[in-house]
Amino acid sequence: MPEQIPDNSVGLVAPQVMQFDEPLTLACGRTLDHYELVYESYGQLNAKGSNAILICHALSGHHHVAGYHSMEDRKPGWWETCVGPGKVIDTNKFFVVCPNNLGGCHGSSGPMSINPETGKNYGPDFPLMTVEDWVKSQKKLMDALKIDCWAAVVGGSLGGMQVLQWSVDYPELLRHAVVIASAPKLSAQNIAFNEVARQSILSDPDFHGGRYYEHDTYPRRGLILARMVGHITYLSDDAMHAKFGRDLRTGQFRFGYDIEFQVESYLRHQGEVFSKQFDANTYLLMTKALDYFDPTRDKDVGLNDVMAQAQCDFLVMSFTTDWRFSPERSQELVNALVATGKDVSYAEIDAPQGHDSFLLPIPDYLAIFDAYMKRVAQESEGLCHAS
Amino acid sequence: MPEQIPDNSVGLVAPQVMQFDEPLTLACGRTLDHYELVYESYGQLNAKGSNAILICHALSGHHHVAGYHSMEDRKPGWWETCVGPGKVIDTNKFFVVCPNNLGGCHGSSGPMSINPETGKNYGPDFPLMTVEDWVKSQKKLMDALKIDCWAAVVGGSLGGMQVLQWSVDYPELLRHAVVIASAPKLSAQNIAFNEVARQSILSDPDFHGGRYYEHDTYPRRGLILARMVGHITYLSDDAMHAKFGRDLRTGQFRFGYDIEFQVESYLRHQGEVFSKQFDANTYLLMTKALDYFDPTRDKDVGLNDVMAQAQCDFLVMSFTTDWRFSPERSQELVNALVATGKDVSYAEIDAPQGHDSFLLPIPDYLAIFDAYMKRVAQESEGLCHAS
Repeated sequence: MPEQIPDNSVGLVAPQVMQFDEPLTLACGRTLDHYELVYESYGQLNAKGSNAILICHALSGHHHVAGYHSMEDRKPGWWETCVGPGKVIDTNKFFVVCPNNLGGCHGSSGPMSINPETGKNYGPDFPLMTVEDWVKSQKKLMDALKIDCWAAVVGGSLGGMQVLQWSVDYPELLRHAVVIASAPKLSAQNIAFNEVARQSILSDPDFHGGRYYEHDTYPRRGLILARMVGHITYLSDDAMHAKFGRDLRTGQFRFGYDIEFQVESYLRHQGEVFSKQFDANTYLLMTKALDYFDPTRDKDVGLNDVMAQAQCDFLVMSFTTDWRFSPERSQELVNALVATGKDVSYAEIDAPQGHDSFLLPIPDYLAIFDAYMKRVAQESEGLCHAS
Repeated sequence: MPEQIPDNSVGLVAPQVMQFDEPLTLACGRTLDHYELVYESYGQLNAKGSNAILICHALSGHHHVAGYHSMEDRKPGWWETCVGPGKVIDTNKFFVVCPNNLGGCHGSSGPMSINPETGKNYGPDFPLMTVEDWVKSQKKLMDALKIDCWAAVVGGSLGGMQVLQWSVDYPELLRHAVVIASAPKLSAQNIAFNEVARQSILSDPDFHGGRYYEHDTYPRRGLILARMVGHITYLSDDAMHAKFGRDLRTGQFRFGYDIEFQVESYLRHQGEVFSKQFDANTYLLMTKALDYFDPTRDKDVGLNDVMAQAQCDFLVMSFTTDWRFSPERSQELVNALVATGKDVSYAEIDAPQGHDSFLLPIPDYLAIFDAYMKRVAQESEGLCHAS
């Protein structure tokens, strides 16, 4: 519980729900006839609607980006570091929107929702989503909110992939794209780690083919393992060394399989906390969306050809010790943008924290991000006043 | 099945068993009153006993290093690449010994053995082993085979750790130490991956606290997951990219959780094959031996102080794309050896295959290894003739 909400927080916020009754056709060929998107927004849309920012969340993220839902909340939203009054994404200047993605487990339509055809949870019958589908649904939300053009679309990791997709699917509907700690597509190793996570869940006897809701259980063990393996890939070897080294919990070997090393304790704890907060079907779906993402595949062209369609300016940022989506992966994107004549700023931030860096208050990162967002804000104001 | 066994193979071989009735006191404080070591040997011990080589195996290895057990064998021993007549470890020149480690599942005393106190499999009651324990038991085998001094002790990965331990525990009993793709101790990230593998097995409902033998089942799902996550760390990102890329099995997305990408197919296959060949309790025990290995811990000194005790010469080799035990980890060891005035040759081999490189026929690797072993052979011959 925050004793007092800090001045530079958006403060107490409440999610909103948007209902959609126009069918949404998905990449898998199926259609969602009705769906809901839960979202939060902070700040005020200006008269010209030129100051709207869309934040796209990553695998385990959601719509609760900043602020608190109640005075009893122990933690603020997941990107409190970057979003708030006077912060990098300054809610005094911007109107910030973040939906929970379709297929999620935090309020938007997903596997936990009731399937109107059966009266039961969708479970495994909820269609698999792609980054394209999410962007399409975010465009519907944009229309519903009467936003004509985003000042910027912003995201890290899987969120950054949505930003990329926005820039090529709706090139005229965003002025800036901010792609952080992301990649133009997963590597075989990335897919392999996701597959381990999926198999952990799928092979858990409590998974019941995804219909665990009906069995009054959930694949707790599978989710814990999935999160543990994921978590290792979010931290750098250096960060783990600095955080835990080879420290033992009790100072000596116990010659059994209970927790001995601090890093084991940390990982199990992370897995257990996560398993209580996240839906296994959503986890599966999110990892598949990651695996499928490849804006070049359908078009059978190179990344240059795809990125050539974009019209916005780009800020791309990566972190030196991020081995999940290494700087080389960002560089691939930057090369394609440079080759096609885009306005692109690229920063490789020297940081020991690995992939998680994009969520952390790293001074160099925030300084560069802040300078870019000030430019976005100035443009937005200019557009507002000039017209 | 080999249609014809190649000339440069040791050919048809048979494991031998050595029984020990003198109690072995282990690092955990417990004692094994009786134990067996299964081992293979190739080549002939010369009159002076100066040409004996000990090979120490890694996590999933065993005593069957080279040759075939029958004409029906589909594959030879695990290091056929390096061990045989005219090969790097030349069985025309050397007498090569390789035991299955205590706690193993290929014939030496381990969790699958019958506990004389209960008449049932040891299962989780088999004591946890350390690298020191293994070296101590290998010394007993050395005595039983009437070998006074190893010409060389050789091993990759966890095998390399045993080599290091030999060099400091019995400095006068080996003339050369060959340490390949290894590390002086695990990093927190290494331990974290091992912990995921352990939790996969421990949380499998078929594990039954390690007494699955009595339940006529085994933790198949857990072993598959453990091997999958392990296997990712054995291959480099580059190797996975070259081998699989983002290739799909059927050429298109299927929007479900069956196998889609080739890398998924490969990993599941590796996991399934392994789960049929390996004992889960042994897997747990082996990962713990890896985690515990740290020759500096008990002595509360630095690596230099520990390695100063060694008297043998060293060949240390690492592989550029090995991210499980990166070249930096070998360099730590080399620095300690150089600092304490040892004769050490170090080669960092440029190879794309990751940690698995030490098992593969990589020309630069074999050439360097071969040159060093020729030196070892010449010394062995000299010792034989001179006396």
